[in-house]
Amino acid sequence: MPKLDICFSPELLHLYPLEGQTAVIVDILRATSTIVTAMAAGVTEVFPVATLEECRALGQQHGCLTAAERDGLPAEGFDLGNSPFGFLDDARPVRGRALTISTTNGTLALQRSRAAAAIVVGAFLNLSAVAEFARREGRDVLIVCAGWKGQFCLEDTVFAGALAEALQADFDVRSSDAALAGLHLWQQARPDLAAYLLQSSHVRRLNSLEASKDFDFCLQIDRYATVLPRWHEDRLVNT
Amino acid sequence: MPKLDICFSPELLHLYPLEGQTAVIVDILRATSTIVTAMAAGVTEVFPVATLEECRALGQQHGCLTAAERDGLPAEGFDLGNSPFGFLDDARPVRGRALTISTTNGTLALQRSRAAAAIVVGAFLNLSAVAEFARREGRDVLIVCAGWKGQFCLEDTVFAGALAEALQADFDVRSSDAALAGLHLWQQARPDLAAYLLQSSHVRRLNSLEASKDFDFCLQIDRYATVLPRWHEDRLVNT
Repeated sequence: MPKLDICFSPELLHLYPLEGQTAVIVDILRATSTIVTAMAAGVTEVFPVATLEECRALGQQHGCLTAAERDGLPAEGFDLGNSPFGFLDDARPVRGRALTISTTNGTLALQRSRAAAAIVVGAFLNLSAVAEFARREGRDVLIVCAGWKGQFCLEDTVFAGALAEALQADFDVRSSDAALAGLHLWQQARPDLAAYLLQSSHVRRLNSLEASKDFDFCLQIDRYATVLPRWHEDRLVNT
Repeated sequence: MPKLDICFSPELLHLYPLEGQTAVIVDILRATSTIVTAMAAGVTEVFPVATLEECRALGQQHGCLTAAERDGLPAEGFDLGNSPFGFLDDARPVRGRALTISTTNGTLALQRSRAAAAIVVGAFLNLSAVAEFARREGRDVLIVCAGWKGQFCLEDTVFAGALAEALQADFDVRSSDAALAGLHLWQQARPDLAAYLLQSSHVRRLNSLEASKDFDFCLQIDRYATVLPRWHEDRLVNT
């Protein structure tokens, strides 16, 4: 039976054998939720980059949409911020467009996961798509939490626990302490996910930035149950 | 109000500002539990080292007791293994002796915590002594989990949660997600701590090495409620 493990921070990725595994990159608030939403809205491919400069340069080079934020607010001079609602605005259709998005934690997690056999992007919004892909591949799974400035964060961990639970019939989800902790925290959080995550001080900070609409949106399970961004060469494509 | 945070692995220590803080080093199975027991039994000072060679050399140099294990078993050519019971054997009195002990994870955690204002050793066995010290110092607290080969481990985390709970009246224990997770996992574990930790595969492995007596011993809360090993220059002394 293949194994499922959770890496709580990109800073710990060197401890995990990624070769031959399926890596699931998670940054619930908000990079991976936004990428899933963008693809659900018809964006064809996504270039995640670490800096605003790269974002701007790639946007000009490929003529694609640009999305960037700094400290929880949209960065100036880009088409969109890091809110999933930016991709749901009829006034700015995104269908058929490519996108470059600046996300520090998410890009780091992606770059450090390159050794994996397959890399996909996970969020509550596409939980079932990720689970189905992992089952079909049948490889060991490593869920890579982007974390909060390299540190453990609750919302990515709780998502990882939810995915572990969804896969527990087909994967060994109990041979790592991180996976056990993820499962237990998810079981505590599930009855009222929003209230549970609002304990987190950085989540509350996000809310204080008037992003609470985003917060509620990102916690919806399987709103886009068939959308699966997958890493291919230098970009994410919808599979 | 000073803050309390938990660092789940020595590999993440560079992300934490240790200057001016109290660091609590934790390696429940078994280094810090054994060091606390040794001092309770009258050992005067402890030199933690990373390798068997250093352990042997320091032992000869200072004429102190040596303790070492590899893969959960006592290493050959040393006075003791890494079991707390080695220090409770009337046939080998340890009172008044110095000790050098080889502990890979624990030594790494200690070495990387050097920037802290005070460094103490924590275990369930001396939980109240650690809490009392942290309260008296009044500084921010960082609990440094030694982890399992650099990865998150359940028993150190659950102890960290127990310490956070003991300090929650005097410290802000809810502004970090790691501390919140520690608290929640401790609250789940408390009703039957041993059964909870036996879910962990590496704990079960320890038990399969006939160390289950050690396991039960290390989970006793406040057996040595006044013993507090504290880092001083190049060694741990009983305060």
